[in-house]
Amino acid sequence: MRAVIRRNRQLVCDEIAELTPAPGQVLVKTLACGICGSDLHALHHMEHMIDLTRRAGTLDTGFDPRADTVFGHEFCAEVLDHGPGSPKTLKAGTRVVSIPAVMGAAGVELLGFSNRLPGGFAERMILTEAMVLEVPNGLPTEHAALTEPFAVGLHAVAKARLEPKSPAVVVGCGPVGLAVIAALKAGGHGPVIAADFSPRRRDAAERLGADIVIDPALEDANGRWESLGVPRTRAAQQMVQMMGGRFARPIVFECVGAPGVLQNLIEAAPAGAQIVVAGVCMETDRFEPSIAVTKEVEFTFVFGYSPEEFAQTLRHLAEGVIDVSHLVTGQVGLDGVAGAFEALADPEAHVKILVTP
Amino acid sequence: MRAVIRRNRQLVCDEIAELTPAPGQVLVKTLACGICGSDLHALHHMEHMIDLTRRAGTLDTGFDPRADTVFGHEFCAEVLDHGPGSPKTLKAGTRVVSIPAVMGAAGVELLGFSNRLPGGFAERMILTEAMVLEVPNGLPTEHAALTEPFAVGLHAVAKARLEPKSPAVVVGCGPVGLAVIAALKAGGHGPVIAADFSPRRRDAAERLGADIVIDPALEDANGRWESLGVPRTRAAQQMVQMMGGRFARPIVFECVGAPGVLQNLIEAAPAGAQIVVAGVCMETDRFEPSIAVTKEVEFTFVFGYSPEEFAQTLRHLAEGVIDVSHLVTGQVGLDGVAGAFEALADPEAHVKILVTP
Repeated sequence: MRAVIRRNRQLVCDEIAELTPAPGQVLVKTLACGICGSDLHALHHMEHMIDLTRRAGTLDTGFDPRADTVFGHEFCAEVLDHGPGSPKTLKAGTRVVSIPAVMGAAGVELLGFSNRLPGGFAERMILTEAMVLEVPNGLPTEHAALTEPFAVGLHAVAKARLEPKSPAVVVGCGPVGLAVIAALKAGGHGPVIAADFSPRRRDAAERLGADIVIDPALEDANGRWESLGVPRTRAAQQMVQMMGGRFARPIVFECVGAPGVLQNLIEAAPAGAQIVVAGVCMETDRFEPSIAVTKEVEFTFVFGYSPEEFAQTLRHLAEGVIDVSHLVTGQVGLDGVAGAFEALADPEAHVKILVTP
Repeated sequence: MRAVIRRNRQLVCDEIAELTPAPGQVLVKTLACGICGSDLHALHHMEHMIDLTRRAGTLDTGFDPRADTVFGHEFCAEVLDHGPGSPKTLKAGTRVVSIPAVMGAAGVELLGFSNRLPGGFAERMILTEAMVLEVPNGLPTEHAALTEPFAVGLHAVAKARLEPKSPAVVVGCGPVGLAVIAALKAGGHGPVIAADFSPRRRDAAERLGADIVIDPALEDANGRWESLGVPRTRAAQQMVQMMGGRFARPIVFECVGAPGVLQNLIEAAPAGAQIVVAGVCMETDRFEPSIAVTKEVEFTFVFGYSPEEFAQTLRHLAEGVIDVSHLVTGQVGLDGVAGAFEALADPEAHVKILVTP
């Protein structure tokens, strides 16, 4: 079958071996698979990424970044066949999504970052039968494929100690920031103040329900806290409290993942802010801890999602709580993946490109 | 009256003007005042400290770091006289402690960092009558003077999301780390694992109730988590949870405040750890956010204490919940302050030196 393979730090279309489902596995046909920012980074910097995750003590799957890899972990697929002994609860033809992790003989394979199993940039995939979720009737395949990136947002919001109807600032409206905005609005929070330099991303943020959308070139999003009744300095906060007043805990989501953003937020965020770090900065970063100490800010670094958050996100999409109809700005076949990776370097060109093998 | 004055980045003994209490104020005689690490830093780097606190948006008290300053914010004092119109609830001769902040005509004066009022390295001080707390009978003056630094520890522990009887790792056993250890034990938590390169500080940690005391030159304190039933890697944690097991949230207190310590803790602490940053690193620090993200650690930067935490700490000392009798390793008069500042550069030489004007 055909797949897009990362080989020698390039993407090439080539044939790979056909797949046979083992007991407990299903063979699926890939219907659509999103291109993630981590794919773009991994194309050139996989060795560094793997080094970082190993040092973080994640499960060592024996993944070799020099060997062939088929990317793709944001997919919607259709059941083709079952492994031996399956109860076959899901009939052939059923559309499914799944957390991109498969139990294999050698342990857990992370689809998209495995040498043994292909991710979604291939015509077919192997999934773990017990982990697949049926796509509810009526939810388009293109939207179901966004379950994975939007689950990242739900997880980030779950890690924030939000009060009911908490206001929040979201810095960066790439796919992670957009998922956070959607999860905040799905949870009934707001006003949500979103900031991004890109007009296209600001437009996407607005469509997902961001209440105030800001161009950081013109205005600092954290400057809006006072208008939400949240004083920014410790002194002003203490004054309000001395007078018996109350204000919401300020929550800021960092969804950029570039060096310098955290230092900027330490200085700009209100005292006592919880800064939920959902952006993944792959470089060494610098900051001044003493300002963070004096302001008593908090960094909550978040990653991934739980199976429950993944399932909840699928429900949000199916029930129309989150409307992602405007986010898929491009679709390509396997031949178009390399070009799509290049196009995604420009934040104005696209929000999400789906691969339809 | 005599005082030790910071003048041209040196400490000099000199005469300063006598003090007269305004309405709402009391004049006190300084009985004992501890030398804090922030005093040592401020002697040479006050301008940088003030720049950082201004950028952190703290109350601007109009403090001029170039003008004369009398340090000392960890004091026990004796009431001498009251301002006009006082109810004189506290008789002359009563021993008191206070949060080192005084309401003045120009706003709040932070004792020890004020050009208008002297701190505790002076024969007499002005305090705000409504804020002084009587030292309970039987609590020695030398111990009461430790209320302020130990309140810092109680506040740090209050900011940690500890479960009942939570284990904790305390990195650094200077005055901040020792205060954290004492507050953890006062709260019934443990085992407390404390680490410091200095044998003297390790001994002090043990006397304050640390259950396991480690020399980081020989062993990484975070290597003890497994023996407390807390797996360090996300993969191992997920395995325990899949089997229906439970483990305490890992809490690590950073009480060193030097560059590089946070990066070290990001790598060494268990996944999901809450790292409570009580050490104040005054320099720019570097770290790799992607490892913090992958491990989902949390930085909770803490500073100061509330009036309730200050009062609670005084009760802990008075009731013997915290025994600080072994911590005062030196006493000097005003003439000996400059020498004591030099002696404190060596962690082996002293734990806490009190100034008795």
